[in-house]
Amino acid sequence: MAEQRAENLSVVLHRAGDLRLENRPVPEPGPNEVLLRMHSVGICGSDVHYWQHGRTGDFIVKKPMVLGHEASGTVIKVGSSVTHLKPGDRVAIEPGAPRDIDEFCKIGRYNLSPTIFFCATPPDDGNLCRYYAHNASFCYKLPDNITFEEGALIEPLSVGIHACRRGGVTLGSKVLICGAGPIGLVCLLVAKTMGAAQVVITDLSTSRLEKAKEIGADFTIQIKKETPKDMACMVQGLLNCMPDITMECSGAEASIQTGIYATRSGGTLVLVGLGPEMVHVPIVNAAVREVDIKGIFRYCNTWPMAIAMLASKRVDVKPLVTHRFPLEKALEAFETTKKGLGVKVILKCDPSDQNP
Amino acid sequence: MAEQRAENLSVVLHRAGDLRLENRPVPEPGPNEVLLRMHSVGICGSDVHYWQHGRTGDFIVKKPMVLGHEASGTVIKVGSSVTHLKPGDRVAIEPGAPRDIDEFCKIGRYNLSPTIFFCATPPDDGNLCRYYAHNASFCYKLPDNITFEEGALIEPLSVGIHACRRGGVTLGSKVLICGAGPIGLVCLLVAKTMGAAQVVITDLSTSRLEKAKEIGADFTIQIKKETPKDMACMVQGLLNCMPDITMECSGAEASIQTGIYATRSGGTLVLVGLGPEMVHVPIVNAAVREVDIKGIFRYCNTWPMAIAMLASKRVDVKPLVTHRFPLEKALEAFETTKKGLGVKVILKCDPSDQNP
Amino acid sequence: MAEQRAENLSVVLHRAGDLRLENRPVPEPGPNEVLLRMHSVGICGSDVHYWQHGRTGDFIVKKPMVLGHEASGTVIKVGSSVTHLKPGDRVAIEPGAPRDIDEFCKIGRYNLSPTIFFCATPPDDGNLCRYYAHNASFCYKLPDNITFEEGALIEPLSVGIHACRRGGVTLGSKVLICGAGPIGLVCLLVAKTMGAAQVVITDLSTSRLEKAKEIGADFTIQIKKETPKDMACMVQGLLNCMPDITMECSGAEASIQTGIYATRSGGTLVLVGLGPEMVHVPIVNAAVREVDIKGIFRYCNTWPMAIAMLASKRVDVKPLVTHRFPLEKALEAFETTKKGLGVKVILKCDPSDQNP
Amino acid sequence: MAEQRAENLSVVLHRAGDLRLENRPVPEPGPNEVLLRMHSVGICGSDVHYWQHGRTGDFIVKKPMVLGHEASGTVIKVGSSVTHLKPGDRVAIEPGAPRDIDEFCKIGRYNLSPTIFFCATPPDDGNLCRYYAHNASFCYKLPDNITFEEGALIEPLSVGIHACRRGGVTLGSKVLICGAGPIGLVCLLVAKTMGAAQVVITDLSTSRLEKAKEIGADFTIQIKKETPKDMACMVQGLLNCMPDITMECSGAEASIQTGIYATRSGGTLVLVGLGPEMVHVPIVNAAVREVDIKGIFRYCNTWPMAIAMLASKRVDVKPLVTHRFPLEKALEAFETTKKGLGVKVILKCDPSDQNP
Repeated sequence: MAEQRAENLSVVLHRAGDLRLENRPVPEPGPNEVLLRMHSVGICGSDVHYWQHGRTGDFIVKKPMVLGHEASGTVIKVGSSVTHLKPGDRVAIEPGAPRDIDEFCKIGRYNLSPTIFFCATPPDDGNLCRYYAHNASFCYKLPDNITFEEGALIEPLSVGIHACRRGGVTLGSKVLICGAGPIGLVCLLVAKTMGAAQVVITDLSTSRLEKAKEIGADFTIQIKKETPKDMACMVQGLLNCMPDITMECSGAEASIQTGIYATRSGGTLVLVGLGPEMVHVPIVNAAVREVDIKGIFRYCNTWPMAIAMLASKRVDVKPLVTHRFPLEKALEAFETTKKGLGVKVILKCDPSDQNP
Repeated sequence: MAEQRAENLSVVLHRAGDLRLENRPVPEPGPNEVLLRMHSVGICGSDVHYWQHGRTGDFIVKKPMVLGHEASGTVIKVGSSVTHLKPGDRVAIEPGAPRDIDEFCKIGRYNLSPTIFFCATPPDDGNLCRYYAHNASFCYKLPDNITFEEGALIEPLSVGIHACRRGGVTLGSKVLICGAGPIGLVCLLVAKTMGAAQVVITDLSTSRLEKAKEIGADFTIQIKKETPKDMACMVQGLLNCMPDITMECSGAEASIQTGIYATRSGGTLVLVGLGPEMVHVPIVNAAVREVDIKGIFRYCNTWPMAIAMLASKRVDVKPLVTHRFPLEKALEAFETTKKGLGVKVILKCDPSDQNP
Repeated sequence: MAEQRAENLSVVLHRAGDLRLENRPVPEPGPNEVLLRMHSVGICGSDVHYWQHGRTGDFIVKKPMVLGHEASGTVIKVGSSVTHLKPGDRVAIEPGAPRDIDEFCKIGRYNLSPTIFFCATPPDDGNLCRYYAHNASFCYKLPDNITFEEGALIEPLSVGIHACRRGGVTLGSKVLICGAGPIGLVCLLVAKTMGAAQVVITDLSTSRLEKAKEIGADFTIQIKKETPKDMACMVQGLLNCMPDITMECSGAEASIQTGIYATRSGGTLVLVGLGPEMVHVPIVNAAVREVDIKGIFRYCNTWPMAIAMLASKRVDVKPLVTHRFPLEKALEAFETTKKGLGVKVILKCDPSDQNP
Repeated sequence: MAEQRAENLSVVLHRAGDLRLENRPVPEPGPNEVLLRMHSVGICGSDVHYWQHGRTGDFIVKKPMVLGHEASGTVIKVGSSVTHLKPGDRVAIEPGAPRDIDEFCKIGRYNLSPTIFFCATPPDDGNLCRYYAHNASFCYKLPDNITFEEGALIEPLSVGIHACRRGGVTLGSKVLICGAGPIGLVCLLVAKTMGAAQVVITDLSTSRLEKAKEIGADFTIQIKKETPKDMACMVQGLLNCMPDITMECSGAEASIQTGIYATRSGGTLVLVGLGPEMVHVPIVNAAVREVDIKGIFRYCNTWPMAIAMLASKRVDVKPLVTHRFPLEKALEAFETTKKGLGVKVILKCDPSDQNP
């Protein structure tokens, strides 16, 4: 063990386009932290975006940063103040851990805290490595019947949970999801689990729509050259009514416009995807029909319910994993993700256990 | 048809213990009403209670009243102002239809309107008969893939929907249901469909608990001589945590006490069952842990979501039907219900179609 | 009286630019209606807009229409089914009365009902006349200590109530209001009454800002050539924090942009003013800070709380009335409103009582 | 200064009935703490209760404990991690500061955290002393226009805020408050500031009711021998309707019963006062009228809004202070409070500044 821990192979982004596998020191956990042996870490679109562009919005990579924030692992050491975890516990990691108990934390919306620590958001290091220390309050014990990969997938699933919750998905909801990428798919899974009656999902790609169909979409629409108003009509035609909630997961201006026209009066458009800073939108149409427009920033308070849901086998995230690579082949894994092949690529960080 | 309609065989309660099958005139629909040929009508515990006691609380049977309020049928005539239904439409009937657009109606809680019409609540007639006229705004068209019996079962299902909604059941909720009678079972079905992770259900009867297990309960507890605090401990032991929501469906004082002790701080106890007027409860325990206590009075705004849910096959109410009788054998059906045999007894009102 | 009622002087818009005073028949109340002798009717910006343009969005004046929808009067006759009002009752009129008990009505958002009757929205006549019949359920009895003019002003006040409620104004809220016209001013009055700690209001006009200051604004900003981001900074500087809620009452694109930049993370931007159909907005800024964007369409469920508030003298709307004209001088009154003089112009419809 | 700080005169409860003034060491602030020179500390009923009984419910005084939790003071030293406060800042102290970032903290209901630190709740020391160290995140800077005494009164005010918020008090609410002690009075102040139209308050004592009238009660009822149902009728008679919200601040069984009978269907009964563990209540009456019963445990997220409210002069808590004593006369101050004289007794802890 000692020898093994001397080496902490990590996926480090030095600047746009310069991604390296290198050894870093094994960290020592602080009083409120746990040291983890990492097991499974998914690659997110934002990891690829940092690699390609060195930034996302105002977050700029100014010094080498470890990537990765969809992760699970095993506790191997606990800080002096930690009581709810012990070595050997398998945990899922919530990557955002507030640094200050500020006004946002106090009201339960800690994701909005401006000083929050967040894995792989500059300047905070992520956990695509062998050993990683994290705030113990944001490590959640996994029951035996949840795999490490399911644990890692709680992160993208959380985006879907937060989006569905902000949108008010409930029993009998009719839902439109724009975009069938990984985030659109988790929104679909979560919406159905929360009781949505019917979900229509749209995308440009037939293969993505097939995946969506496979995991539960009631209707799919392949977008071609339709105008936003045409799209809204098609959706209404399929559902025999306008959807109560639209989850826009593409960030495209036309798709946001579709979301406004399509959503039923009194309903909600959730902006999940991020696109250009300024967009042209039919705001009066939304306003006079009281269609609320709500964005999401990451998530909060989702890990416990995701674990409860996975443990009870009420949702199946396994079909989302399409590729696996050992940590040593991280660069190949990133290339695969960049090409948009499959849905979710998982890196296996523990050389002695490459199982799901 | 004319001949058939001349006879409107109806199940009429004259006074406590005096239930008769008799012919009544076929009603003429008012401008906002539809005339229905009744198909399937479930017998509810309250129907039996009126039959046995001639009253429920302040509602007293003072003149002969047709029983029945869990119902579906076919439109055969529409009033002059009705535009959304036409003869031949198959509909489920919401038995409560407000008479006045009062303050409760205006805020969307029309079930609380003191002047509401409600089938088989004195002095308003129910629909256990061949022909019945009802407010068209409270008749909901059934799609082809929902049977008449499923349509009739929307009424008990609505109690579950309203209870789960008042309790705030959502993704990952842990739920305790006290009582595995028909209402406890619909609460169970709805809670799971709204995303509850685990449901514990309690009852005195093993056969009822077996039924609960069959339709999705994760844990069952047969109540023997445990104190309310003991029961709370057992529930916590099964779930590894206290339930977020308790739905009390028995009305028993001990069970309400259990509900308070068992529910997690910040959670909700929903009072679904009705028992004695005054009860002894550990109110301080609920208060200082901010366990909210909420009752339900019937339901509102449940039919559209129930239909969406049934149409999408996301919930299966068919196992609830254990007995069927033709309308002519209504007295036998009532005896069966009184004995507590099975779960739901359905009367088939259309002599030419006795299918589900 | 009979003679008087034979003449029903009414302000009728025939087409854009063609506003006439003419006699119309005195209506007969239907079973659920009351006939009113009108007393005070305010002129709204939308009345002037119909007069000038013959339309507002998709609502087009195709046949002569009586204007006016901010109104109060006295019941002089009640329909056969009306029980809660009697001749002599002084009432405030809610101009929107749903025709159908549809899905929106049932959930308490009747303002969204597509078939709603609404005074002075084509093709429905308003109540700028001597005698007018209205749905009795939407006429609210005024206590003796509320004047007819206060009763008429409940209509604009309702816009402020609905906007503040949708925005979540509560104890200690910091609020930005963009635009100090009549609607901005009622938003200000209501926000303060709901517990807002500080309100900043902006406008181009110093006289409007003075009025705002007079009725309770904590800070005013006269807009000159600032960019939306500059405006947001100025607001933050005045409050020492970002406002929790912004109420945009101008409809201007730049002002909507200001609303997004200015509102604190997790807060709400309420779109009250209506401007161009398509606008350019920094939607990502709103989305990633979870600033919700909510419009309002008229209002619902506001009359009872407005009456309670006025009766308890907790809000003073009287300073809003700056001009009064007898009904006979309606055209002069409309010219005054068009010129933007003062805040609220009231027409006095009862020749025998021209008091407030 | 050094000399002064060597002595930290403190009000220490050793056991039931044994209250002493004694010198304790001046504490050293931890990294996240600030050291405060205490200025004004109110005496709460619970302080007196501990003094008299040595316990409150399950909280038992097992070792000497400093009393006091309604407090304000001046920062004289900051811990190494504190950035938002500096020596010289005047602050109000929120006495409850969570120790763990547990599930309750994360959702914004940190008052329910079972491991929370709370001043003067065994075994945690309070701040009735000269020098006190507290979690800096729960010390709130006071603007210059708020006095130290107003700062100390934010604690009882917070109970009123939390109660009104849980009850849903809003514009136009009709409110019944049972009990006109200090907590009933702050509920009254807050309810009015949140827009309540009319408040009825009840008590046994005429002098308390006079105080209530003085600070804004619309109606008062002196309780004699009325039954709960009689009381409910009297309240309805005064308001011309049933109250939307009842705030029960006495803990008496009869008063809880009154609260249920009195509250309007669909309304809320808030349990603020604590009485016997088990009570007899007409639970069916509450349940079938959907009157929600909600308790409160202390408060959360109230200091910022209380400060905003006090700074804007929208609420006046000064009339609540009826007695002041220097810290040296703490025992006399406790005797005064025990006798129920006046409303709020304040201890002045800073020998060099005994101003409000």
